[in-house]
Amino acid sequence: MADSKLTVAGILYPGFEMLDLFGPLEMYSLLGTEQVEIVLLAEHDQPVPSAMGQDISSGPKAMPDCVFSAAPKLDLVVLPGGFGTIPQLANEVLLEFLRQQAETAQIVSSICTGSVLLARAGLLDGRRATTNKQFFALGTNEAANVEWVEAARWVEDDKFFTSSGVSAGIDMTLAVISRLFGVETAEQVAVGAEYTWHRDADEDPFVEHLNGMSISG
Amino acid sequence: MADSKLTVAGILYPGFEMLDLFGPLEMYSLLGTEQVEIVLLAEHDQPVPSAMGQDISSGPKAMPDCVFSAAPKLDLVVLPGGFGTIPQLANEVLLEFLRQQAETAQIVSSICTGSVLLARAGLLDGRRATTNKQFFALGTNEAANVEWVEAARWVEDDKFFTSSGVSAGIDMTLAVISRLFGVETAEQVAVGAEYTWHRDADEDPFVEHLNGMSISG
Repeated sequence: MADSKLTVAGILYPGFEMLDLFGPLEMYSLLGTEQVEIVLLAEHDQPVPSAMGQDISSGPKAMPDCVFSAAPKLDLVVLPGGFGTIPQLANEVLLEFLRQQAETAQIVSSICTGSVLLARAGLLDGRRATTNKQFFALGTNEAANVEWVEAARWVEDDKFFTSSGVSAGIDMTLAVISRLFGVETAEQVAVGAEYTWHRDADEDPFVEHLNGMSISG
Repeated sequence: MADSKLTVAGILYPGFEMLDLFGPLEMYSLLGTEQVEIVLLAEHDQPVPSAMGQDISSGPKAMPDCVFSAAPKLDLVVLPGGFGTIPQLANEVLLEFLRQQAETAQIVSSICTGSVLLARAGLLDGRRATTNKQFFALGTNEAANVEWVEAARWVEDDKFFTSSGVSAGIDMTLAVISRLFGVETAEQVAVGAEYTWHRDADEDPFVEHLNGMSISG
């Protein structure tokens, strides 16, 4: 068990993918409020639209609890992907926030195209990582100095956990919980969510769709 | 394919379970904005805390797009469960909203303990339904005139779809998509989310945990 309550932070930006973020946060929440405190962070103190809308400014919204500039040191960082990833590649405020938090965080995790933001921030230099299968080239084009792993449900490299697309983030998060709290706790969390944990990081049912097209365009 | 764009509504209330709601909405969103418009609805026009907090008033929040009293006719209703379900059993505003929308909606779906709210609204009278395994008695105590199905990932009865706990809502939603758009579209959505669809409604890996205790208390 961890020594004290962990602060788990979900990072919001316009056009983030809802399930990328709330799948993992749901798993952490099932550890109970004695173990974790979950907060949503964003650059600005206003509702942040998800990728579910007509464009990245119009989707259903989540509300940040705290802005980057006022954030405490975070223990676990959860960075989603989504169609909003690409404009964020130029957002130095977000990138610098990720760099600063990564220095002290226990775990920095990304889901889907979130790893491309970690790569742009320089945090994956020389490391193994993965990303969404259907947009894999977004990662490989971004950072040649990252060892991008094609066939992986998720990849662990020291404190950095990167998952494949969307649902893979849930499996990755259970692996983080297993590292921090033990495999039995991870299994209990999965049961609590009635989720069948795919626990082999190297077994990737979706690698055949590498760089295919999403049906949503 | 559906004739025109469908309005998919996620229902927010204090203490709703994040993954119950955003798992299903993620699946609908992958149909693309030509097919669906996704909105979040709540009783009041203010951020709604999820079940991830210390109590049902303090969790990370989602922002409604529209209040119940101003809502259009909805095509697909997505009602999550969560620790906030119990106080909502006495919220006649929510219950009456569900009754009104159910008259004209194509599909009324619930996840986890959301079905207990549908039962309290009288919408499941004489119907087959299921709910979260670990809190199954909440349903059976609430409504004896519902045929509660213990071993079911989800249950379909006419327009009413009710799922077991949390993650089961994703599988149920793919079944809704299969009914409305065909099984190939549902399979494409699952691939888009890198999700392994558990497509047998009667195969329930978690029935052994019936009325067990949640690790989060």
